[in-house]
Amino acid sequence: MRQAGRSLPEYRSVRGQGSILEAIADAALAAEITIQPVRRYGVDAAVLYSDIMVPVWAIGFGVEVTPGVGPVIDPPFRHRSDLRRLRPLEPEIDTPFVIETVERLVAELDVPLIGFAGAPFTVASYLVEGGPSRTYSRTKALMYGDPGLWADLLDRLADLAIASIRSQVTGGASAIQLFDSWAGALSPPDYERFALPASQKVLRAAGELGVPRIHFGVSTGELLGPMAEAGADVVGVDWRVPLDTARDRVGPHLALQGNLDPAVCLAPWPAAAAAARDVLRRNRGHPGHIFNLGHGVLPETDPAMLEQLVELVHREGRADGPWPAGAAEVAT
Amino acid sequence: MRQAGRSLPEYRSVRGQGSILEAIADAALAAEITIQPVRRYGVDAAVLYSDIMVPVWAIGFGVEVTPGVGPVIDPPFRHRSDLRRLRPLEPEIDTPFVIETVERLVAELDVPLIGFAGAPFTVASYLVEGGPSRTYSRTKALMYGDPGLWADLLDRLADLAIASIRSQVTGGASAIQLFDSWAGALSPPDYERFALPASQKVLRAAGELGVPRIHFGVSTGELLGPMAEAGADVVGVDWRVPLDTARDRVGPHLALQGNLDPAVCLAPWPAAAAAARDVLRRNRGHPGHIFNLGHGVLPETDPAMLEQLVELVHREGRADGPWPAGAAEVAT
Repeated sequence: MRQAGRSLPEYRSVRGQGSILEAIADAALAAEITIQPVRRYGVDAAVLYSDIMVPVWAIGFGVEVTPGVGPVIDPPFRHRSDLRRLRPLEPEIDTPFVIETVERLVAELDVPLIGFAGAPFTVASYLVEGGPSRTYSRTKALMYGDPGLWADLLDRLADLAIASIRSQVTGGASAIQLFDSWAGALSPPDYERFALPASQKVLRAAGELGVPRIHFGVSTGELLGPMAEAGADVVGVDWRVPLDTARDRVGPHLALQGNLDPAVCLAPWPAAAAAARDVLRRNRGHPGHIFNLGHGVLPETDPAMLEQLVELVHREGRADGPWPAGAAEVAT
Repeated sequence: MRQAGRSLPEYRSVRGQGSILEAIADAALAAEITIQPVRRYGVDAAVLYSDIMVPVWAIGFGVEVTPGVGPVIDPPFRHRSDLRRLRPLEPEIDTPFVIETVERLVAELDVPLIGFAGAPFTVASYLVEGGPSRTYSRTKALMYGDPGLWADLLDRLADLAIASIRSQVTGGASAIQLFDSWAGALSPPDYERFALPASQKVLRAAGELGVPRIHFGVSTGELLGPMAEAGADVVGVDWRVPLDTARDRVGPHLALQGNLDPAVCLAPWPAAAAAARDVLRRNRGHPGHIFNLGHGVLPETDPAMLEQLVELVHREGRADGPWPAGAAEVAT
């Protein structure tokens, strides 16, 4: 469960008041925050505590992550000359703390560690908008107005993601997750033209490292077909698409991850349990399913609710049958 | 095109600095703002300049619409006792300016006027959250946690919408549009349980008035099936779902409205024209299609772009064949 720490008192007590980037740069703290939900909930894998802006921040693009707002980029990416600000990432020099966090975690964890990278489209949307957006109008204007520059931008961001992923896998991460949180703002033809190629490049490169790849998105129900072609082993599904519908769109050969509405965890337990069972039921016994929330844990979630949820899924979700090798590396 | 005025210099020159609610309460101004895009673009219908919060504001629920933020509700809806704050709407007393705006418009317009109402789910989300939200966590917590209170809340909001619609149709509106902008935050089973019944109540009551009904949503691709059952004559489709996919989900008997990405209007004309032609092509010659943007016009849109767009659709979009009676009342 992504951002599972946010609801934990032990997270709030170690996290301090600094920006998330400062916490990520402190390997001991980042490792502790990564482990906390595994310790508390007994989930089957850990997701590296990180942020999709880490590589662009580390190469000095002018990124801050403001609490309550999100990433703020000053100055934003606007012109071809801004490409020069996107030099290659040298993980040992630029993000040694990421490598150290991964190494600490691999030494300490009993479960697999899932590495973390931002998909080029979503990272680009922040760079171009200068911060969070509801409409992505500057991003789309650049993409339509200068497709050549857009492609060059996404290609550089793909290279940054690849370099970061490689350092995480070399450090011992067992799988990687590519976060394309805002791809759902695109129509399917625009996704295929303007976002998919760079994500494919990242996922292919990750495949060469021999680890399973999870492809995460939100509001991407209509994009599940092309996402299934992007090269990942696991396709994320938010709660807007019933899991059986998602399976029909993705086909039988990939694993799915999801897809409980995080807000259900604010419901009384019987309602939450019913919703979790509905997800399990809609999986129709397919062995390739990583049970998860469809988006990050909401900060106001009661940890006791997540404990019960993990227990229910462990008790009832495994009766379906054995897991195939590929998915098992991530999910058990 | 909803919010088509926002990009017009003539809109900015009459609009003033007040809140949108003040502008709506000034019938002469609201009528002028409604007409401006019809005058400029030659579109086939006018959408009443209004806001989904007008009825709850008019009965004194404590609503402000803050520029740059959106609706702010103080105090929000939290307890059963808050139902008392939702008394019935008496349009002649509470919103005489809406009736006057409609009457002025009907006298002046050469095209049909589409009336305006907020769907109970979306209005409720503002009342419960106290303002705009990205997660709808308080809304969903109430809906799951106290389904009885939730149903009572939505039923009252349905009655408010019905009273407002009735006054608009009596005043001369030729059709109505029900705006459920945030229904796309719900999973399909939650939509059917927690949002659909109240929308059905509104759409049925509007049907008894004998006018065509348009059912608008955003990110509602997965809800098109249930929305097709809700009782509207026209189902809105945002740009995330290709129009041919939407047609498959809605079936052949209803009209569709949409579905160009508003951000395409920020592209150079050849890219925008290609995207508009793709929408027309995906309609596959079905006579029940109201060409529109999939969401409101973005404020930074160049009016010249929308002029060209309307011209293209008028020139190329009508070769398909005659419009059936139901859709023609709205669209020609």
